[in-house]
Amino acid sequence: MRPSGRAFDALRDIKITRHFTKHAEGSVLISCGDTQVLCTASVEDKVPPFLRGKGQGWLTAEYSMLPRATRERVAREAAQGRIGGRTHEIQRLIGRSLRSVINLQALGERTIWVDCDVLQADGGTRTTSITGAFVAVADALMVLRQRGAIKQSPLKDFLAAVSVGMVDGQAVLDLDYAEDSRAEVDMNVVMTGAGQFIELQGTAEGAPFSMEQMLAMTQLARQGIETLIAEQRAALGMS
Amino acid sequence: MRPSGRAFDALRDIKITRHFTKHAEGSVLISCGDTQVLCTASVEDKVPPFLRGKGQGWLTAEYSMLPRATRERVAREAAQGRIGGRTHEIQRLIGRSLRSVINLQALGERTIWVDCDVLQADGGTRTTSITGAFVAVADALMVLRQRGAIKQSPLKDFLAAVSVGMVDGQAVLDLDYAEDSRAEVDMNVVMTGAGQFIELQGTAEGAPFSMEQMLAMTQLARQGIETLIAEQRAALGMS
Amino acid sequence: MRPSGRAFDALRDIKITRHFTKHAEGSVLISCGDTQVLCTASVEDKVPPFLRGKGQGWLTAEYSMLPRATRERVAREAAQGRIGGRTHEIQRLIGRSLRSVINLQALGERTIWVDCDVLQADGGTRTTSITGAFVAVADALMVLRQRGAIKQSPLKDFLAAVSVGMVDGQAVLDLDYAEDSRAEVDMNVVMTGAGQFIELQGTAEGAPFSMEQMLAMTQLARQGIETLIAEQRAALGMS
Amino acid sequence: MRPSGRAFDALRDIKITRHFTKHAEGSVLISCGDTQVLCTASVEDKVPPFLRGKGQGWLTAEYSMLPRATRERVAREAAQGRIGGRTHEIQRLIGRSLRSVINLQALGERTIWVDCDVLQADGGTRTTSITGAFVAVADALMVLRQRGAIKQSPLKDFLAAVSVGMVDGQAVLDLDYAEDSRAEVDMNVVMTGAGQFIELQGTAEGAPFSMEQMLAMTQLARQGIETLIAEQRAALGMS
Amino acid sequence: MRPSGRAFDALRDIKITRHFTKHAEGSVLISCGDTQVLCTASVEDKVPPFLRGKGQGWLTAEYSMLPRATRERVAREAAQGRIGGRTHEIQRLIGRSLRSVINLQALGERTIWVDCDVLQADGGTRTTSITGAFVAVADALMVLRQRGAIKQSPLKDFLAAVSVGMVDGQAVLDLDYAEDSRAEVDMNVVMTGAGQFIELQGTAEGAPFSMEQMLAMTQLARQGIETLIAEQRAALGMS
Amino acid sequence: MRPSGRAFDALRDIKITRHFTKHAEGSVLISCGDTQVLCTASVEDKVPPFLRGKGQGWLTAEYSMLPRATRERVAREAAQGRIGGRTHEIQRLIGRSLRSVINLQALGERTIWVDCDVLQADGGTRTTSITGAFVAVADALMVLRQRGAIKQSPLKDFLAAVSVGMVDGQAVLDLDYAEDSRAEVDMNVVMTGAGQFIELQGTAEGAPFSMEQMLAMTQLARQGIETLIAEQRAALGMS
Repeated sequence: MRPSGRAFDALRDIKITRHFTKHAEGSVLISCGDTQVLCTASVEDKVPPFLRGKGQGWLTAEYSMLPRATRERVAREAAQGRIGGRTHEIQRLIGRSLRSVINLQALGERTIWVDCDVLQADGGTRTTSITGAFVAVADALMVLRQRGAIKQSPLKDFLAAVSVGMVDGQAVLDLDYAEDSRAEVDMNVVMTGAGQFIELQGTAEGAPFSMEQMLAMTQLARQGIETLIAEQRAALGMS
Repeated sequence: MRPSGRAFDALRDIKITRHFTKHAEGSVLISCGDTQVLCTASVEDKVPPFLRGKGQGWLTAEYSMLPRATRERVAREAAQGRIGGRTHEIQRLIGRSLRSVINLQALGERTIWVDCDVLQADGGTRTTSITGAFVAVADALMVLRQRGAIKQSPLKDFLAAVSVGMVDGQAVLDLDYAEDSRAEVDMNVVMTGAGQFIELQGTAEGAPFSMEQMLAMTQLARQGIETLIAEQRAALGMS
Repeated sequence: MRPSGRAFDALRDIKITRHFTKHAEGSVLISCGDTQVLCTASVEDKVPPFLRGKGQGWLTAEYSMLPRATRERVAREAAQGRIGGRTHEIQRLIGRSLRSVINLQALGERTIWVDCDVLQADGGTRTTSITGAFVAVADALMVLRQRGAIKQSPLKDFLAAVSVGMVDGQAVLDLDYAEDSRAEVDMNVVMTGAGQFIELQGTAEGAPFSMEQMLAMTQLARQGIETLIAEQRAALGMS
Repeated sequence: MRPSGRAFDALRDIKITRHFTKHAEGSVLISCGDTQVLCTASVEDKVPPFLRGKGQGWLTAEYSMLPRATRERVAREAAQGRIGGRTHEIQRLIGRSLRSVINLQALGERTIWVDCDVLQADGGTRTTSITGAFVAVADALMVLRQRGAIKQSPLKDFLAAVSVGMVDGQAVLDLDYAEDSRAEVDMNVVMTGAGQFIELQGTAEGAPFSMEQMLAMTQLARQGIETLIAEQRAALGMS
Repeated sequence: MRPSGRAFDALRDIKITRHFTKHAEGSVLISCGDTQVLCTASVEDKVPPFLRGKGQGWLTAEYSMLPRATRERVAREAAQGRIGGRTHEIQRLIGRSLRSVINLQALGERTIWVDCDVLQADGGTRTTSITGAFVAVADALMVLRQRGAIKQSPLKDFLAAVSVGMVDGQAVLDLDYAEDSRAEVDMNVVMTGAGQFIELQGTAEGAPFSMEQMLAMTQLARQGIETLIAEQRAALGMS
Repeated sequence: MRPSGRAFDALRDIKITRHFTKHAEGSVLISCGDTQVLCTASVEDKVPPFLRGKGQGWLTAEYSMLPRATRERVAREAAQGRIGGRTHEIQRLIGRSLRSVINLQALGERTIWVDCDVLQADGGTRTTSITGAFVAVADALMVLRQRGAIKQSPLKDFLAAVSVGMVDGQAVLDLDYAEDSRAEVDMNVVMTGAGQFIELQGTAEGAPFSMEQMLAMTQLARQGIETLIAEQRAALGMS
């Protein structure tokens, strides 16, 4: 029995609110259970120095938690004067994942800045960020098309992410904080709408895992991501 | 005629939502027109080094804007590795103002961390932060009383803040971004429930101001703050 | 009775020494009682990136205290690797104030760097900095005119600053450290030669203040600033 | 045909030199083809603050590349004043992996500092670091046993890592730089002597990957790691 | 003929003003020609961590130039967030030199902070700092004796410093900026009252130097330092 | 008798290995006894901003110790976010020394980056770095000539460095750590093949030193450097 009472293969409730703030080209508040992330996508009409003049665009992501998104208040990275390793790891993951479904040539020489700010954390903030950021990016690209800046959508496929893990020897889907803090294995999976892997990051927290466990977890993740992508479609009015 | 169509002495719509996030002892989402700030108050059971063993508490404030709270995306201070002058100025103002209405002896040896994170900016973010943070602090102090940690409320009075300014030679209340960016004078006023000044910061942006203009602006501010404090009372169920 | 024996409306002794060091276009040592600040104005023939090509100039200010300007030695900000909030607040105030009396178009595409370094501190370092820096800037602008770089003086008016406060319920002018550390209210006022406000920053340190107290303090400040501007005129040989 | 002429399932030549430098408790120079990493393990008789008094030890890892370990010189992170995201990601991976095979209770209240400094880079520096660091840690633990500081070895199992990837649609083992820079998928696998996963990090660089491809890659990785562990055993005189 | 008209073995005019500022235990304004340095010595009743409980004291030095001490304004190190190599080199030299003539056991568990702030620079700022700082330290130690904190003076000898160099093939004493910027060799010498070396730092700026030139320069330095120490004695009323 | 059993004028064993790593234009592993430094010279086809368009080149040096090159592990400067004073001092010395024997005009508008990374430290790391870096630079310049980028070698002379000191009243050559830590005087000497000084840095660690001692030490250094230059010639195949 999971602490939340969910079945081993059940996601938490998802809610995707588009246009949550008014300035950003894409602005999505996503909640997966008690995890809430504000994802914005901002368009800038230039690219980083290493891409100048190459006729292609870029997407970069930043991730942050509000100091009291968590049980205990965590010091701001700005106050400490540097970004920690966990944050670096997460924002690199978000950026890499989203770039994998964007045709950067079709985007033209512009940068999409994705900002994922966690308002409330209850496990799965990095995967929730990816799922929400995809919708914000889709909205920003629609704005670019409406402005006539691009002819066709640079999106190659849908993209969503979910965490899976081994808890008490059982593979479970979409861990909340209570489960995450005692899982033996923690795995984050990012997949496309076509059901293929973009990222797969499994970590033995308490015990090594076998090939069979790995397969069971990825199987669960695939199912969860199918549901998440259906929610994205619905939110974007494409279902 | 003001850009928003408001009368010269009219506030924007205020909305105060308590318990917006679940972990913080006090968590308030405040909106003044399109300006939205998430204010949390977190209690820590220790004080900074300079107060250890003195039998009194402390309150400190941090302020930040999400990168796309604004028209143009602004780089994160964490990414730049340092906090800018404007942020320093604002968080010092918020902390000083709130400390002025708290009996720090009655608080005991604990620190209240106030975090004001601007989700959407449309002028007046520092004054809105103070008005919202006061309610978050009041909630956090109530939690402390319910836990039996303190006997009586350390709050000495209510506290709210508003901006006033001279726009086209006219004193106006509660400037939004459109007015703020072309005001001749910008003034932020923090007052108590008893109608006394805590902070008064007037800056000639475009033209020096006279004693008479200063009086007209502070008069408007006093009225506005009365209304804001009535809203705080209502939100706290004390009206 | 004030600790210094001064009347409630008496300034400390002022001394303004021009050409204190030889390299800067303007170099002024100002003392107000035991507070001593070396103010230099340096001209650079370029402007910050945000102003390039706009045909106007800029003025920016930096403020620092020598480590042992104070009773207790204070660590250098360079050694700590970052500038603190108080310094940011002060240098923003100095720069904003001085810019308000300079016609930046008439200055042309050049920057005036104002450096205020406190050699000895005894209260009122930020206001003394502004009063001294104005003279240094006037000298630097004279050098520019002598070089033929500008046709007419970009100065629109004189500018000086003073602190006032409430001490034991009495409004007093020009607080020294002994008074400043126990004042109920601390207010810094910046005014032009025409007697109009440029900046007004009042802070309740120990108790909120009323409209009447605020008026009494600004009244005292206005008188003090008239005297300070007379001293500036005398130093510049314009009286 | 691979650029190096190797078969799809062939590792590069491995060389493990123990006691490469004299001061560290464990000091190993490992080369996998042209990738050379100096791995040291240093013992410190205290633990980080979050573990004090808990009767257990800790292991932490740092990773760095000498500026000219690479084709183009890369600026030192010390000169830039901050550690980049890639370095953070790698040193977190190394530390987490090694901790997973150490019984931290048996280690006692001491910290093992693992330093992996890449002298020459030709792909696979993070996996080579893990494989070499394991041997350095084993040496350091032997020193602790010889000193009588610990009774039994805290090592729970062997540990090694290798990269696998999809290149031109073919799963290949142990990518060098030439392959790594054009791989469609890049996967790093860390496994124990018992053949179980500790970490699995797969990234679609150029194209998403299927479940079948993922299985082919992990299968190759398992074989490679068996060989690497045999090399570790031989180097430690345990084969 | 030297640019200043001085003989090859002539020092510039020296002026040593004690008690220049009021808060520091030792406060000396020293000028050597147009080079002016404010040297303060501050006493703190604790030692750095590495000396705690060892029954001895410490002396540490910091050096800085005001931004416009020089011909061209130089950016503040505080504003840049880090101390440059030249500053590090100089403050290490000052601290090391002064420690060499202090009996740190006799000082007891306290630290002397020496601050050398260059108000105006015209060559020889590091040597002038050492010569002036010695007097400030002597004053601070006298204050400690008057307070009864120490029984006898921890000073072991006098100490002064001077620059010498090769200019147009001629060894010259006490270079000003005009000479320094075109010298072939630049040498800084620190000596005791007994005429022995504490530091000797010679650098070939334009051409290597021979043993004979080195001897000629050190000979000149010794004479100059004798005169400087006579000036220190006079300033301290010991001649 | 020296701890190592060497005669007072004996160098430690020198070993110079060229082409130690494959990417750098010059890559030398040098060992002087147990001190081992990897010195690389990298060519970049641009110069720092202050030299652009002046038709000359530049050479800059960086120095670092691997964390466990020393008896006790030393924290990485990258992890601390800043470079310490000792490192600054050393890398300035290395760069200055090497530039003194290079004709920067003949180098053309390119920069040579010298990196000295200490793999193992046993005294004399800065002088060993200079001696090794000279060979790496010579190799890099040969590569430039082979590429046809420069016509003639910009090298003006050979260059090597050694430490000397006073230990127990005796001048000794090439101090190892055991001697260095108890020397009364520590002196680093950099000389050309022609036997002239480039740098001379003598520091009284425990006692001031006389003119005679200084001469004895520089005499020893000259002999040592002659031998070191012979080793460089041999390594470069020029003997």
